[in-house]
Amino acid sequence: MKLKHLIGVFACLLPGMLQAQELLSPNKELIMNFSLKEGGVPVYELSYKGKQVIKPSSLGLELYGEQEKVEFGSNVNRLTTTDPKTSLYDNFIIEKADTASHDETWHPVWGEESAIRNHYNELAVTLKQNGTNRRMIIRFRLFDDGLGFRYEFPQQQEMRYFIIKEERTQFAMVGDHTAWWIPGDYDTQEYDYTCSRLSEIRRLQSAAITDNLSQTSFSPTGVQTALQMKTDDGLYINLHEAALVNYACMHLNLNDAEMVFESWLTPDAMGAKGYMQTPCQSPWRTVIVSDDARDILASRITLNLNEPCKIEDTSWIRPMKYMGVWWEMITGKSDWSYTWDFPSVQLGVTDYSTAKPHGRHGATTENVKRYIDFASANGFDGLLVEGWNVGWEDWFGNSKDYVFDFVTPYPDFDLDEIRDYARSKGVRMIMHHETSSSIRNYERHLDKAYQFMVDNGYPALKSGYVGNIIPRGEHHYSQWIVNHYQHALEKAADYRLMVNAHEAVRPTGLCRTWPNLIGNESARGTEYQAFGGSKPNHTTVLPFTRLVGGPMDYTPGIFENDINKLNPNNHSWCNTTLVNQLSLYVTMASPLQMAADLPENYARFMDAFQFIKDVALDWDRSLYLEAEPGAYLTVARKEKGGARWFVGSTNGEQGREAHVDFSFLDKGKTYIATVYADAPDAHYKDNPQAYTITRYCVSSRSKLDQYTAPGGGMAVSIVEATPAEAKGLNRL
Amino acid sequence: MKLKHLIGVFACLLPGMLQAQELLSPNKELIMNFSLKEGGVPVYELSYKGKQVIKPSSLGLELYGEQEKVEFGSNVNRLTTTDPKTSLYDNFIIEKADTASHDETWHPVWGEESAIRNHYNELAVTLKQNGTNRRMIIRFRLFDDGLGFRYEFPQQQEMRYFIIKEERTQFAMVGDHTAWWIPGDYDTQEYDYTCSRLSEIRRLQSAAITDNLSQTSFSPTGVQTALQMKTDDGLYINLHEAALVNYACMHLNLNDAEMVFESWLTPDAMGAKGYMQTPCQSPWRTVIVSDDARDILASRITLNLNEPCKIEDTSWIRPMKYMGVWWEMITGKSDWSYTWDFPSVQLGVTDYSTAKPHGRHGATTENVKRYIDFASANGFDGLLVEGWNVGWEDWFGNSKDYVFDFVTPYPDFDLDEIRDYARSKGVRMIMHHETSSSIRNYERHLDKAYQFMVDNGYPALKSGYVGNIIPRGEHHYSQWIVNHYQHALEKAADYRLMVNAHEAVRPTGLCRTWPNLIGNESARGTEYQAFGGSKPNHTTVLPFTRLVGGPMDYTPGIFENDINKLNPNNHSWCNTTLVNQLSLYVTMASPLQMAADLPENYARFMDAFQFIKDVALDWDRSLYLEAEPGAYLTVARKEKGGARWFVGSTNGEQGREAHVDFSFLDKGKTYIATVYADAPDAHYKDNPQAYTITRYCVSSRSKLDQYTAPGGGMAVSIVEATPAEAKGLNRL
Repeated sequence: MKLKHLIGVFACLLPGMLQAQELLSPNKELIMNFSLKEGGVPVYELSYKGKQVIKPSSLGLELYGEQEKVEFGSNVNRLTTTDPKTSLYDNFIIEKADTASHDETWHPVWGEESAIRNHYNELAVTLKQNGTNRRMIIRFRLFDDGLGFRYEFPQQQEMRYFIIKEERTQFAMVGDHTAWWIPGDYDTQEYDYTCSRLSEIRRLQSAAITDNLSQTSFSPTGVQTALQMKTDDGLYINLHEAALVNYACMHLNLNDAEMVFESWLTPDAMGAKGYMQTPCQSPWRTVIVSDDARDILASRITLNLNEPCKIEDTSWIRPMKYMGVWWEMITGKSDWSYTWDFPSVQLGVTDYSTAKPHGRHGATTENVKRYIDFASANGFDGLLVEGWNVGWEDWFGNSKDYVFDFVTPYPDFDLDEIRDYARSKGVRMIMHHETSSSIRNYERHLDKAYQFMVDNGYPALKSGYVGNIIPRGEHHYSQWIVNHYQHALEKAADYRLMVNAHEAVRPTGLCRTWPNLIGNESARGTEYQAFGGSKPNHTTVLPFTRLVGGPMDYTPGIFENDINKLNPNNHSWCNTTLVNQLSLYVTMASPLQMAADLPENYARFMDAFQFIKDVALDWDRSLYLEAEPGAYLTVARKEKGGARWFVGSTNGEQGREAHVDFSFLDKGKTYIATVYADAPDAHYKDNPQAYTITRYCVSSRSKLDQYTAPGGGMAVSIVEATPAEAKGLNRL
Repeated sequence: MKLKHLIGVFACLLPGMLQAQELLSPNKELIMNFSLKEGGVPVYELSYKGKQVIKPSSLGLELYGEQEKVEFGSNVNRLTTTDPKTSLYDNFIIEKADTASHDETWHPVWGEESAIRNHYNELAVTLKQNGTNRRMIIRFRLFDDGLGFRYEFPQQQEMRYFIIKEERTQFAMVGDHTAWWIPGDYDTQEYDYTCSRLSEIRRLQSAAITDNLSQTSFSPTGVQTALQMKTDDGLYINLHEAALVNYACMHLNLNDAEMVFESWLTPDAMGAKGYMQTPCQSPWRTVIVSDDARDILASRITLNLNEPCKIEDTSWIRPMKYMGVWWEMITGKSDWSYTWDFPSVQLGVTDYSTAKPHGRHGATTENVKRYIDFASANGFDGLLVEGWNVGWEDWFGNSKDYVFDFVTPYPDFDLDEIRDYARSKGVRMIMHHETSSSIRNYERHLDKAYQFMVDNGYPALKSGYVGNIIPRGEHHYSQWIVNHYQHALEKAADYRLMVNAHEAVRPTGLCRTWPNLIGNESARGTEYQAFGGSKPNHTTVLPFTRLVGGPMDYTPGIFENDINKLNPNNHSWCNTTLVNQLSLYVTMASPLQMAADLPENYARFMDAFQFIKDVALDWDRSLYLEAEPGAYLTVARKEKGGARWFVGSTNGEQGREAHVDFSFLDKGKTYIATVYADAPDAHYKDNPQAYTITRYCVSSRSKLDQYTAPGGGMAVSIVEATPAEAKGLNRL
């Protein structure tokens, strides 16, 4: 860390000037102004290239008051006091303003780039509240691509513990922007995105709230972060948070008369939003801004605002390409469960050994070995198996506490045989820890389940939090449950295990600090293509929203669009072309990539499947060639420690031409580019499997204009070649 | 288990007779009638020797309805249904009525008797609900000393899972009885008892609710069990529950217009009172009844209704007499904490090694060794030390999650040295696990804390649940937290550890099944004598109420009444005579008995202290010689596996003569009885330390009439002697 006090960059601050502070980004294109308005209310505003991005917006928190002071020991007394004062948003004076600058380059364990520059100017304003003498620091970090700020609460006698009633951070918008939003919800993020004006959110909200197994909406104008917006004059603004640790996840609630967003934290069962002990701080609130949509994708603000890696030896953290006994259950072709013999099951009581199998169980030894064979033959690192452990007969919707023990297999799943078979085939098993959101039960079994993985050589786990949280009344995104995910993650690091948490809180860049967090769901994943289908442009929004916080286990690779062919009772349709699926391995960067479809579906398209086999998982460089939220993005990435490049172009609902300028290639070298493209008549709805595969000879002077179909895309793999190898290929 | 179908005891049941059932106790003095009243509502009534005890009272439960059925997999659908029907209290028909009889004698690991007879007649009524076809069994067991009944929910497709809105079990009283009650409360039982007519509860309730660190009152006529009552014609009726497992603790709410109690379960944060999966059952609801108060004390219904011991090898479960570095903190003479250096502490962050000790810390190596010396010199088994582990600076009242780690000592507590010193002196250390009610934090550390005990040779632990429960919104007595206590207890058995849980749910005879539960607080303990004082008759009520469920770690033995002498700022007074304190070691039977006062206070009264050194902890026989709730009780017990007898007489607020008939002694043998008695001018308020110690020669023909002072008592130890040894002693 190279923090140094800025001398000369900012004017020397005289006491009388402490009412207002200006902070410039390193390139001076962003300007943040902080001041106290009447009544001692902290206010900030933000501009970019002279355009206002955030109008003057209030900062602060509202606390619970009326704390009772109870004495223990000699005489138990209950003294009702009105201290602390509930307002932590006014009556402040600026006690101090510290400035600093920071410029370093750090190297993530995995990611879109092997080197990340963290360059910002910082302003830390120490506020003191009249009357209470409480101190709070608001720390701003202004990067060239946006702003981060957080509240810091130093240890002090005047504020030892406090309970947050609400955080009152405002983001005042300049106009009625276009936004790609999902409804604010304490328990799910698995919604399709709606694109609308801010003023239309209220009208469109109820239609946007589609059914989910656990959901808690809170306001007709509540939305989730990362929220991507676009102004009428072409600014892209993205609001999110970074380093969500020991705090409730933030939603945004829109005052649509004024176009002012205000933070809305996830409450606990009592309605309280945070239990704090000083010293402590809030997560960072982030505003990424640019007039070029590609800069949103290239921004590393979320990672940069997180703490450096806390795992000393990271050698065991390795990206994985995996398959799974999963899609056949998601589609309803087979089941997680084993039997229909019992009205309900009780672990340790129900005798599975004598139960009649219903014959639809997916995780049988035989079927798993079939997947292992295919995964091994095609060079995959891992295999996920779901539904292998007892308890799936009644695993959700019953508020069942002791729902899984995480380690006991069904009678038809031969754990040892499968483990040994996978090992002999070079495939590593990914363990499945579905918790059914019974958090206490999971924590009670955590050590045993992790030790099981160590004992059996499982390097990674997929955890799941389907259904309503137990303890009842808590939410998926409340502080206490956020702490659980963190606990499970840190303990996994102790066991040297990688975690891919589904239905957990959305990521906020924590994978910088804990790179064993190799994946999260936390959005509407591919499974919804089997639950009725997602919008064709869904994956052109996710990189601007969900992925701002970290990689997603999106589980792409669906080659058979007609789910009916897998399950006659399921009439879902996967709303993408086959090539669109290929493109996602590049555009949706993740160190964990699944090929989600069934081996038999891949067997029909082995030429296209080759791209999934080839594509890298970890990157030295990433270039965002073209992008527009909800419409398209084209990304080129160079594999880490290698010479290959991969390009993905993911298209939305309108057919268009994708453009690739190959100038990123080493000058003077020859490459072969294999282009997987939608056929001219391809369409996500009625002709999704129409694709072409063409090999070209390319160099740094090449250009490609390639049609991408509605719901389609393009995927390109580029390898260095000798002129002889490239002979006969068309040049681009 | 000797269950056999009764043939001839009950008339053969014809289908038409199924509307009403009669059940007789083995001695035929109790009669229970069960019937369905209009609307198919189950009703029971109870009589004793021809007197009505319980008037016709309804049975059943109210459920939450409107369950949403959500499908997972292909198409997520949310179907709102109105199933299940919310009533599980009407529209029943009797499908079957099974009767049985049971008579066995079993042997507890420890207790008031070494052999317990379990003798009852049983009626199990299978009810089927019209419309829903749901089945519920109500099982009645009628003993000579009372009734137990419970609800059983067989596994069935019609009722796989259900959520309890309220249990609707009525206990309709015949009149406006006298009751010894404490206010109904979801979070504490630490109240003084109020004796009043049932009709006066409403008026007296608010005064009865004294301050506590965590308390949640729910109704002006709510009371807790065990509830002891007395009718105007001399019947003693006791209402409680047995075998509280995976269910919310029951309170009683009085309809004081009709004098009908109805069950009132402890809710969770959502207000729900139980999450049930069939097959399952409620705890037993118990009605102990007699015209002799002594029979209430002698009743073993609560134990008999629990399951037999589930611990195979119980050799490691041994009663303990112990001292503690505790009373000096309770009185405020010293502190649990170590330093005043920090506004608050964070485990793993706060550096205690450089902190300045405030000099009031009780658990210092030196002080602990002083207690070890005294405990060892006087033959005590164990020593409890509180405040030895880091975190006590801000341990309650802050809703602090990570409050203790349970294993890290303060700098001035040399763990190894103390452990080795205690071992060398033959004293076993009792570990202290104060959780501050941060349940998840305790469960996260449970294995490590238990392993620590195994590693260091600690055989028993005192756990504590001071303050409001985390997860916030849950209560000390809600189902989910009841499950925690059970989890901690069963896991302790795995580690071969004994548990003494304070502020946990009141016991319900579970020590039969899990005899490593050697103690509970769950009532107003001796500590309140240092928190302003308890009523002088408090311990003449507890045996009729709190102790019906199991032993209490009451921590008696306070010899110095004037707390001011320990702490100039504490003006509390212990409202008993010194001899009353001695009597409690007999009248308040427990396998865990503390001598709670300081060594220096015992040193001043070593002749009286001799009784505490002598008294046994475990018993072959117990005889209840005289008893009246709230007034007095005299109990004689024969030590287990030995020939000594001990008599305790605990008196209430009025001076009286205690009467002991020594006919329980072996005929023809000579004994020496050492009688510890209040001096004639003794009084709990102004002359509590005035006592006499007299040795008598006694035989089975002896009788003793001994004055016991207000707040006083008597203690007698009786050992067999040769005539020569008894020579010169007065004969009784």
